[in-house]
Amino acid sequence: MTNFEDLGFSKVDYDREERTGFPEIVYGLSKTSEQLKKIVEKLVSNHNKTLVTRISKEKATDVMASVPGGDYCARSQTLVYGENEPLDEGYVLIACAGTSDLPVADEAARTCKWMGCRVKTLYDVGVAGIDRLLAHRELIQGASVVIVIAGMEGALASVVGGLVKRPVIAVPTSVGYGTNLEGLTPLLAMLNSCSSGMSVVNIDNGFGGAYQATLIMKLAVDGGHPN
Amino acid sequence: MTNFEDLGFSKVDYDREERTGFPEIVYGLSKTSEQLKKIVEKLVSNHNKTLVTRISKEKATDVMASVPGGDYCARSQTLVYGENEPLDEGYVLIACAGTSDLPVADEAARTCKWMGCRVKTLYDVGVAGIDRLLAHRELIQGASVVIVIAGMEGALASVVGGLVKRPVIAVPTSVGYGTNLEGLTPLLAMLNSCSSGMSVVNIDNGFGGAYQATLIMKLAVDGGHPN
Amino acid sequence: MTNFEDLGFSKVDYDREERTGFPEIVYGLSKTSEQLKKIVEKLVSNHNKTLVTRISKEKATDVMASVPGGDYCARSQTLVYGENEPLDEGYVLIACAGTSDLPVADEAARTCKWMGCRVKTLYDVGVAGIDRLLAHRELIQGASVVIVIAGMEGALASVVGGLVKRPVIAVPTSVGYGTNLEGLTPLLAMLNSCSSGMSVVNIDNGFGGAYQATLIMKLAVDGGHPN
Amino acid sequence: MTNFEDLGFSKVDYDREERTGFPEIVYGLSKTSEQLKKIVEKLVSNHNKTLVTRISKEKATDVMASVPGGDYCARSQTLVYGENEPLDEGYVLIACAGTSDLPVADEAARTCKWMGCRVKTLYDVGVAGIDRLLAHRELIQGASVVIVIAGMEGALASVVGGLVKRPVIAVPTSVGYGTNLEGLTPLLAMLNSCSSGMSVVNIDNGFGGAYQATLIMKLAVDGGHPN
Amino acid sequence: MTNFEDLGFSKVDYDREERTGFPEIVYGLSKTSEQLKKIVEKLVSNHNKTLVTRISKEKATDVMASVPGGDYCARSQTLVYGENEPLDEGYVLIACAGTSDLPVADEAARTCKWMGCRVKTLYDVGVAGIDRLLAHRELIQGASVVIVIAGMEGALASVVGGLVKRPVIAVPTSVGYGTNLEGLTPLLAMLNSCSSGMSVVNIDNGFGGAYQATLIMKLAVDGGHPN
Amino acid sequence: MTNFEDLGFSKVDYDREERTGFPEIVYGLSKTSEQLKKIVEKLVSNHNKTLVTRISKEKATDVMASVPGGDYCARSQTLVYGENEPLDEGYVLIACAGTSDLPVADEAARTCKWMGCRVKTLYDVGVAGIDRLLAHRELIQGASVVIVIAGMEGALASVVGGLVKRPVIAVPTSVGYGTNLEGLTPLLAMLNSCSSGMSVVNIDNGFGGAYQATLIMKLAVDGGHPN
Amino acid sequence: MTNFEDLGFSKVDYDREERTGFPEIVYGLSKTSEQLKKIVEKLVSNHNKTLVTRISKEKATDVMASVPGGDYCARSQTLVYGENEPLDEGYVLIACAGTSDLPVADEAARTCKWMGCRVKTLYDVGVAGIDRLLAHRELIQGASVVIVIAGMEGALASVVGGLVKRPVIAVPTSVGYGTNLEGLTPLLAMLNSCSSGMSVVNIDNGFGGAYQATLIMKLAVDGGHPN
Amino acid sequence: MTNFEDLGFSKVDYDREERTGFPEIVYGLSKTSEQLKKIVEKLVSNHNKTLVTRISKEKATDVMASVPGGDYCARSQTLVYGENEPLDEGYVLIACAGTSDLPVADEAARTCKWMGCRVKTLYDVGVAGIDRLLAHRELIQGASVVIVIAGMEGALASVVGGLVKRPVIAVPTSVGYGTNLEGLTPLLAMLNSCSSGMSVVNIDNGFGGAYQATLIMKLAVDGGHPN
Ligand SMILES: Nc1ncnc2c1ncn2[C@@H]1O[C@H](COP(=O)(O)O)[C@@H](O)[C@H]1O
Ligand SMILES: Nc1ncnc2c1ncn2[C@@H]1O[C@H](COP(=O)(O)O)[C@@H](O)[C@H]1O
Ligand SMILES: Nc1ncnc2c1ncn2[C@@H]1O[C@H](COP(=O)(O)O)[C@@H](O)[C@H]1O
Ligand SMILES: Nc1ncnc2c1ncn2[C@@H]1O[C@H](COP(=O)(O)O)[C@@H](O)[C@H]1O
Ligand SMILES: [Mg+2]
Ligand SMILES: [Mg+2]
Ligand SMILES: [Mg+2]
Ligand SMILES: [Mg+2]
Ligand SMILES: [Mg+2]
Ligand SMILES: [Mg+2]
Ligand SMILES: [Mg+2]
Ligand SMILES: [Mg+2]
Repeated sequence: MTNFEDLGFSKVDYDREERTGFPEIVYGLSKTSEQLKKIVEKLVSNHNKTLVTRISKEKATDVMASVPGGDYCARSQTLVYGENEPLDEGYVLIACAGTSDLPVADEAARTCKWMGCRVKTLYDVGVAGIDRLLAHRELIQGASVVIVIAGMEGALASVVGGLVKRPVIAVPTSVGYGTNLEGLTPLLAMLNSCSSGMSVVNIDNGFGGAYQATLIMKLAVDGGHPN
Repeated sequence: MTNFEDLGFSKVDYDREERTGFPEIVYGLSKTSEQLKKIVEKLVSNHNKTLVTRISKEKATDVMASVPGGDYCARSQTLVYGENEPLDEGYVLIACAGTSDLPVADEAARTCKWMGCRVKTLYDVGVAGIDRLLAHRELIQGASVVIVIAGMEGALASVVGGLVKRPVIAVPTSVGYGTNLEGLTPLLAMLNSCSSGMSVVNIDNGFGGAYQATLIMKLAVDGGHPN
Repeated sequence: MTNFEDLGFSKVDYDREERTGFPEIVYGLSKTSEQLKKIVEKLVSNHNKTLVTRISKEKATDVMASVPGGDYCARSQTLVYGENEPLDEGYVLIACAGTSDLPVADEAARTCKWMGCRVKTLYDVGVAGIDRLLAHRELIQGASVVIVIAGMEGALASVVGGLVKRPVIAVPTSVGYGTNLEGLTPLLAMLNSCSSGMSVVNIDNGFGGAYQATLIMKLAVDGGHPN
Repeated sequence: MTNFEDLGFSKVDYDREERTGFPEIVYGLSKTSEQLKKIVEKLVSNHNKTLVTRISKEKATDVMASVPGGDYCARSQTLVYGENEPLDEGYVLIACAGTSDLPVADEAARTCKWMGCRVKTLYDVGVAGIDRLLAHRELIQGASVVIVIAGMEGALASVVGGLVKRPVIAVPTSVGYGTNLEGLTPLLAMLNSCSSGMSVVNIDNGFGGAYQATLIMKLAVDGGHPN
Repeated sequence: MTNFEDLGFSKVDYDREERTGFPEIVYGLSKTSEQLKKIVEKLVSNHNKTLVTRISKEKATDVMASVPGGDYCARSQTLVYGENEPLDEGYVLIACAGTSDLPVADEAARTCKWMGCRVKTLYDVGVAGIDRLLAHRELIQGASVVIVIAGMEGALASVVGGLVKRPVIAVPTSVGYGTNLEGLTPLLAMLNSCSSGMSVVNIDNGFGGAYQATLIMKLAVDGGHPN
Repeated sequence: MTNFEDLGFSKVDYDREERTGFPEIVYGLSKTSEQLKKIVEKLVSNHNKTLVTRISKEKATDVMASVPGGDYCARSQTLVYGENEPLDEGYVLIACAGTSDLPVADEAARTCKWMGCRVKTLYDVGVAGIDRLLAHRELIQGASVVIVIAGMEGALASVVGGLVKRPVIAVPTSVGYGTNLEGLTPLLAMLNSCSSGMSVVNIDNGFGGAYQATLIMKLAVDGGHPN
Repeated sequence: MTNFEDLGFSKVDYDREERTGFPEIVYGLSKTSEQLKKIVEKLVSNHNKTLVTRISKEKATDVMASVPGGDYCARSQTLVYGENEPLDEGYVLIACAGTSDLPVADEAARTCKWMGCRVKTLYDVGVAGIDRLLAHRELIQGASVVIVIAGMEGALASVVGGLVKRPVIAVPTSVGYGTNLEGLTPLLAMLNSCSSGMSVVNIDNGFGGAYQATLIMKLAVDGGHPN
Repeated sequence: MTNFEDLGFSKVDYDREERTGFPEIVYGLSKTSEQLKKIVEKLVSNHNKTLVTRISKEKATDVMASVPGGDYCARSQTLVYGENEPLDEGYVLIACAGTSDLPVADEAARTCKWMGCRVKTLYDVGVAGIDRLLAHRELIQGASVVIVIAGMEGALASVVGGLVKRPVIAVPTSVGYGTNLEGLTPLLAMLNSCSSGMSVVNIDNGFGGAYQATLIMKLAVDGGHPN
């Protein structure tokens, strides 16, 4: 039997937590403050938690005025309510190539944490100075899952992929200009990596990389058993 | 200290099993029989196992004549030697949208099995007849990881992604014509899925999807601990 | 014999209603208020009705000040005058995948209604929660024509296409980011649907989908006879 | 309750006729003779009819040797068994721009006829000689649905679209060279037509255009009532 | 011997009139007012005439304050000084598909006139209402050269091309949205026209179309003799 | 009144010579020998002349066996019958960048000659050795129209365009590899030429360039008067 | 042993001067003033010099207020501190096609100079007036390395490449419109040059062209010996 | 004064050695054996040397039968005659990522050697096993110029670029499948490298990379002086 509420402009999917493990996450970009307020209110009263991504400061202020208890981060454009059950094994490593990738890295980190993961970060380790990266081999090889975030040519993902036994989730960013093609270049590079054990999400999709990493962590904590 | 052997045309990476958990896998497409024979011989004598992908029947016959113990499958164009330690928890589900996706699905299945996974398959469940898919909800939701393989518009990945708690690895195929653009269309679709928890590999890369799925299974069997 | 009026910057096609069943519809995007006023005035005095699409609030205000009787909707950027003869059989269903698709869905709904169709709507039924969609099978299968509006990966169109006996008109939207490529991804997906009986219009072209759906309804009301 | 048969490599969807009005149609391109024989046999014994598209002469000969009663056409690469109930109102007009578009036009004509439509054809009426087209205004305006098939720049679709009251389904073809981009150019042109009431299917997809046209005819014959 | 003046940021090519028949024409888009003033002053004092394209109102005002005698048109973003010797045979017809193409059509008309051509115009004759076009057969067939300007799918160029004995210069415009791809679609369509005797210039390049048309007129006035 | 003959698969346009100055020219690529024979026979008996482009040696032999009087050229893949009235002023110069462009250059030369033009050629004058080009300034500046044919980066067109008073028709070729993109690169380059007075036709379209050049010559011979 | 400092958001690579010959250069585009201040301060105190590219006037003012000694240039958006050891042989020639390429040319010139090169410039020598270019043969052939900067069709690079014995570094710019595709067209043209001895950097990357040119000069000054 | 010989289909540029330092190099791909024989004969008798690239075994056999003294290599498809003066400083390092890149690496090596360079090679050092690369730091840092050849995602170029003081010339190859896009992906990656001091040539253009590397070596041997 299906379980959702129809707000006219939106059908809030209360069944999603039961079905997929986590409540609906709200894509804030093209929703109005009015729409966001109503959806967040419904999700928080049903699940005690939700995550809104790509939400501007203005809209977040509106929503928090209406639904208390939110925590907003402007750099990553995320608004979180509540938290999920902690996943107490290992850690997800979030590595990024340059300072310019920080907003995406933060979106990933905030998502992982809200979903229950332990997170470590390694920022600005692009391959132009490979020794900065290799100096952290232990941190990298100690991770259960690695999220690699890179713009320009995205080569960091391949190098990390060649160093680890664990899954790598690659997130291309739109950092660059000209033939970077707003992130298409690192995306294509990551899809063609000569390192095995890497899969890829949409450009600038720190959220998506984190979500996939957390599902992997959760399966691991559950010992590989189906849910 | 690095550990590889230089054959001139190739540097065989004996350290890879220690470093990444599995020995080097050989990309057969643009290598000659001569080159393949020498690389396979080195890998088999050092690791007792290897996998060659995208290898034609002719080349495989040459290699097997020279290095005994291989097992060749023409539909998936794979040649395997030996096997890896079994991963005795849960199963990987390989679901594909149409009959035409079978070569890619078989490449994925052969890779998963060689790497130690238990595998179940669900073939020809494209969304044009959604009830064929929904009739197998239990099989789908019982999987630890799902590999979804689809050409044309790739919609199967999104529908499966919305049904499960576990990670989905999406493999676009070049099945289709015209605006399918040799698989670019399902690739793009999968990268933009409205379902969370999905990551994507290169077009027709059944091997890559399987490799990622197995790394996830291995982490899970290890309980999320670093290696 | 041709029948149009030459305003210099525009040749108003009075013959169009006779020839194609509906008077000229005005594309407002790159016309000035002055141009729009004159064209609308001519069409309203000749046909008692017209529709202007992609018209901003500012321009619509100018036009309505000059030609009374208009009805403007800001979300869909449409301005309508008068109405066409009602088509009193069945209904067109307008289904959209997410809240962000509403402006396009409204453009479609306003166009269908002005052209005489009965319209029902089903909003926010993206495939990430397939049960929300399947809960409305009856509504979907009861429609004479379905307009499916979706951004991101556009998978909703294929799923709906597999459920119905009636024609589906798919409208891709530019909702998404990165590899969504401003709507090219759902467009390509829809053109490659594994469900038969679907045809596609331009990105964000709610008007075009509605126009095609209405021509189909009109033919049906006429019992398939040529006009 | 779902109703399909699992052949391992294929799940034959017996429910499709009930659900969508027509039995499964088989995409022959990447299936082996062995696979096609088994699928066709199942469909013919359950529905007394089926259609196979994109099937080579060799494979069709194999299938017909195994399942008698088939009718093969080499130019359109189609194999038909049985026939659907006739739709006895109006006609579908299949118009194509040049002699080179004939294989696609034939695929469309064979599909329409098998599905029950009455078909008229108008071949080689590209806009370079517009009077050839205008000489047939009556035939064009008398059609209930028009399928326009064109390669190169695809302009024929727009001109026909401006002449009729009825829906136009546009099928771009890969006829041309250089910047024709294997049919992308007429596809893009058709999606941007300045004529309203046109929708578009994949490149060279005569089958898809015919299927959509027939669904429209069927709705019309049913008087616009839901099924 | 070369004849130009070096302003540091620009080398003004005084030899161009001798060599190519017309003095340098200035591309205003990315030049500053300061740069434009100096270049225009040099060209006007050497040739008594010049044309500046893509120049904003602000910059034009600056230039005209400094170099008197200019004539600015805001819609076409052109500034002209002086005039070229009249070409007193036949006329160039500038035909455009829709009202939105007027800025490009005006750029073409102003360029042709400044270069000496007689110009006639035919605006808003897109193929959605083909009879508006055919009503002007005489005007079209009486032209010595036709410039066809169209956005969307650009079909007007092919239809005109099929009606005339004289050269057609096709100018695609960026009018449209979505798969119009900012004018790439009509450009591609025009390059693939099934009508012979058409050549194409860059998107929105009314200037370029006019320049080519005028060179043709000039050759004709000279009776085909080399200069 | 329209004047064409309907062969079923083709409508031969006898009115074309009257309307556009030259009889129908046949695109041989995707027509069968049978179709070509019938079309050529009709055109030759009505006009005493025709031109077939992109016709293979095999098909040409079939056609010539059936319709005597043809002249075939294998390098340019053209078959001509009869000839058009000579244009006795000036000459068309066909300049190409490299030896590899010869098939396209020949297609252009054969078309120009059949249409009545006087032709001169200048082959292998690519800009890598600019002095080879400048050594022929007189030949270049003496032409009434120049057809520039170039692959790779197509720079020859811009250099020639800067040297002449007369129209340049640029024909990009698919000569090159990798990022040449089968001729898209020189096409794009030619459309963006910094030299004015150039227009462009489809990739490898020597025929199209020649047709346009000849229309220009014909207008010139007629002194710019309408036909 | 690696040598870098971790600022959290950035790992400043002090080893880079030792390893690659020059200290880290800072990409200013997506860094905040706060981040830039800290990075610049560290680099200046460790190396006495650095270069920041793509830095706006606002950010540069902030940085210079905090770290004295900087020299800012608004047209090229560069901020330099200190200088590198002079390279006292020959000169780098920076040639650009049009006035609109000046910002990129200036970025190249400022980078070359800061890195120690002697620089000469040759501006506005696009091939539309080839004699302006050929008038400077001596200057061009006297250079040790030539950086050619051009937008539109980028033909200047090929012409220069055919005139010199020395390496040419080609920098495409985004100057142009329509099919210029924001610089993709000159980039593609330069990659396909028929002149040998040319290599290419990213669109508008004056910095990158200059960096490569200087490495070449430095090798030359060192007489080709490894460092 | 220009110095070339006109063979009709080709203008052999005898002046090129004087002007650019090396005689004409012949692009063999689309020339016939007849054409190649004549061009090679002319070049060999005038310069005692030439290089033909992209020449098949068949054509090379024809040429060598006619012009003795040639040396053919099938893997790199190159034919060389004679040799250029040796450049006796340092060495060019040719590094490639995988065994499949060998044909391109060989084309580069043969070109460098013929042009006079000393060459060292480092094959199969892709970043999936970074230690194989780092084990050769000395060889890499000892080179005067490095040519990096890589397909798939091309990350090797960026890693090498971050290790050296000397110029890197990156050559993307078409090794890979799917989203490799026949080499476009590594090309784009290389153009966006986060390592400075790298420039790029066309896909699979080992010849072009080698030519540029040799011009750099020659300048270095000449101590940076103009020629
Ligand atoms: N020529 C064709 N083009 C596009 N779709 C087709 C074509 N022929 C069959 N189909 C559809 O594609 C699907 C083929 O599925 P399958 O036979 O399972 O691979 C069926 O649902 C058909 O409706
Ligand atoms: N709107 C335009 N589109 C394309 N080319 C133009 C345009 N206006 C001027 N030009 C040409 O572009 C060149 C401009 O060069 P410059 O003014 O030196 O940047 C001149 O050779 C003009 O012929
Ligand atoms: N304008 C530019 N274009 C391309 N690369 C640049 C530019 N400016 C700096 N870089 C390089 O990009 C890197 C910047 O890294 P980061 O400052 O850590 O984001 C450095 O390694 C620079 O060498
Ligand atoms: N493999 C190659 N890739 C790119 N350019 C080449 C190649 N081989 C030769 N060339 C250049 O291409 C031009 C060939 O011109 P042509 O032989 O006249 O067609 C010469 O200028 C060569 O320098
Ligand atoms: Mg950094
Ligand atoms: Mg099936
Ligand atoms: Mg929703
Ligand atoms: Mg025809
Ligand atoms: Mg209009
Ligand atoms: Mg040559
Ligand atoms: Mg200039
Ligand atoms: Mg290897």
